[in-house]
Amino acid sequence: MVKIRNKINDIEPYVPGRSIKEIADAYGLKEDEIIKLGSNENPLGPSPAAVEAMERELESVHRYPESALTDLREAIADYAGVEMDQVIVGGDGADEIIDVLGRTFLEPGESFVVPMPSYMYYEYTLQAHDARAVHARWDVNENRLDLESVLDAVDESTRLVFLCTPNNPTGGLIDKKDIRAVLESTDALVVVDEAYTEFAGVDNTDLLPDHENLFILRTFSKVMGLAGMRIGYGLGDPQIIEYMHRVKPVFSLTRLSHAAALATIRDRDYIKKSTEYSIKSREYLYSGLKKFPELRVFRSYANYILIDVRRTGRTAAELSEELLRKGIIVRDCTSFAGLDEYWIRVSVGTLEEDRRFLEVLGELVQ
Amino acid sequence: MVKIRNKINDIEPYVPGRSIKEIADAYGLKEDEIIKLGSNENPLGPSPAAVEAMERELESVHRYPESALTDLREAIADYAGVEMDQVIVGGDGADEIIDVLGRTFLEPGESFVVPMPSYMYYEYTLQAHDARAVHARWDVNENRLDLESVLDAVDESTRLVFLCTPNNPTGGLIDKKDIRAVLESTDALVVVDEAYTEFAGVDNTDLLPDHENLFILRTFSKVMGLAGMRIGYGLGDPQIIEYMHRVKPVFSLTRLSHAAALATIRDRDYIKKSTEYSIKSREYLYSGLKKFPELRVFRSYANYILIDVRRTGRTAAELSEELLRKGIIVRDCTSFAGLDEYWIRVSVGTLEEDRRFLEVLGELVQ
Repeated sequence: MVKIRNKINDIEPYVPGRSIKEIADAYGLKEDEIIKLGSNENPLGPSPAAVEAMERELESVHRYPESALTDLREAIADYAGVEMDQVIVGGDGADEIIDVLGRTFLEPGESFVVPMPSYMYYEYTLQAHDARAVHARWDVNENRLDLESVLDAVDESTRLVFLCTPNNPTGGLIDKKDIRAVLESTDALVVVDEAYTEFAGVDNTDLLPDHENLFILRTFSKVMGLAGMRIGYGLGDPQIIEYMHRVKPVFSLTRLSHAAALATIRDRDYIKKSTEYSIKSREYLYSGLKKFPELRVFRSYANYILIDVRRTGRTAAELSEELLRKGIIVRDCTSFAGLDEYWIRVSVGTLEEDRRFLEVLGELVQ
Repeated sequence: MVKIRNKINDIEPYVPGRSIKEIADAYGLKEDEIIKLGSNENPLGPSPAAVEAMERELESVHRYPESALTDLREAIADYAGVEMDQVIVGGDGADEIIDVLGRTFLEPGESFVVPMPSYMYYEYTLQAHDARAVHARWDVNENRLDLESVLDAVDESTRLVFLCTPNNPTGGLIDKKDIRAVLESTDALVVVDEAYTEFAGVDNTDLLPDHENLFILRTFSKVMGLAGMRIGYGLGDPQIIEYMHRVKPVFSLTRLSHAAALATIRDRDYIKKSTEYSIKSREYLYSGLKKFPELRVFRSYANYILIDVRRTGRTAAELSEELLRKGIIVRDCTSFAGLDEYWIRVSVGTLEEDRRFLEVLGELVQ
């Protein structure tokens, strides 16, 4: 038999998610009746400017994409208030950038720190690198970072510290002074994941000039409405960006992703409208959920809400399954390390989708 | 300063390629006058069915892509004459699959074998893994694999052997008996890169049932006309495919790439027409080039032709630059290890593009 890496045996076999068509078939639903509140997408759909830009490029997809992406990096720099040489673009969303961080910084035996619960893909992606994950703690009850746990977790072997703000799946924000405290406690690269920053109305780019060990991770998958086109970006010190480019896949951003990203980031009206709509929808959903005595609902600064469902007498898996039968997809958070089997995360949808979700939830749990 | 991996210092800084717009600006050309014969793309453009399929999906790009890709893997299996569990799809063309091969098989200190000259991206991609590249030899004069050099290069530390057929950039084919000889000489995974297999009219899938250490690499970037959408695939033993899925990025294929790939692989008329056209164009280009006493031209089984230009009194860099001034992009092969500074590779274009290239070349070198 061909010899594989030892590490591969420790990694769980891959279980692909079901497609909408498979879910529809399994539950006897129509595909267009299904309400997707599981992946924190933009419920309004993509920017019309992005759709037009892709349409113009359709006949050119036999040509390789560009590798320099100068126009896109300039547009991102303008949007984020940094310089172009502080920008790196990822061709598989922010996930590619997480992998490139691993390739750039992690030697076997070194470590990275992740507070739990948080975005699971840091550890999923980096498990193929031979580095160790060290868990710090997100205080779920207070919905805030346990700063001391992060400072305690960081040691000589730490190369990366992941801080997600607003945090996925809890929705809480990290105080800027806590981020500064972590930055100043270590030489490791502190990766502040701002995937949901627009919904919070605050960001941490103002810390970049004084902290060369700050790296900010962003995505086009959330408010930018392009989850299906896999575009992410990172902001950091120019020297770090240059090191990362040495090991980044060169052509990983498709031609149409490039066109769509450029059109979207220039469409400030769309970004503003999408942000405002999702915040309005979040507040509507929050007040609706608060009316359920069976639920413990968490304040969120993002476009999703975390719910503790244990008082319904069901596990998250059971409740998710019941919702699915009614055509509503939410995220069962059982697989998030740091949460038990009683948590679901629901994305902000259109107001009509929120209303329908609240109605169905009411039928099920009340 | 943040500590990077030692390895990063050994890797050359990234030099992005110039966009068509930058080339047009630099040489005072119009973008649509430029003839691209540098990247072995399909000169006929994408399948109309692919364009339609993408158009239908444009409004859904705010949704995450699928991860299972069942329909696409089934369609590829049908096309290649294998089973679905023998198929893995790459979301950054074949390049992602090369990286996943590295993650699955290469421990630090182990090695992979590449005959030179061949496709440079094997080594480029795998340099971030801490494995050693061991070079075997492609006999350029005879345009065939030096089998003995491969058998000599393989040892206990070898985990991957790359055999590109037709070989890029030389265009020569590897005999099936030579592939079998390599397969039977080692337990290492033998990666047969068939990116250009349709233009040769032969493939090696018939060796799969008897050789669990055979892995065949393919792409949608060549005859399939989708270079800009970054889709590749691999065919191999189901257990190996399963191991690779454990470390493969889950969502790296964009929604539109998925739609385009599925439509194209079902459009057998397009694939047949594209193949026949490129072969016809290749033979036209070959006979035109053979008339130049200043050129040494190599027979090719792919959609490009390798040319030794030293008798023109110019280096490949000089001749490429002169062609570029006239609006024609070819590939200067100086960066291919195993070739000196006197080689260019020209892709097969439309017959009109070929004619124009031969005319301009005649003006320059005769």
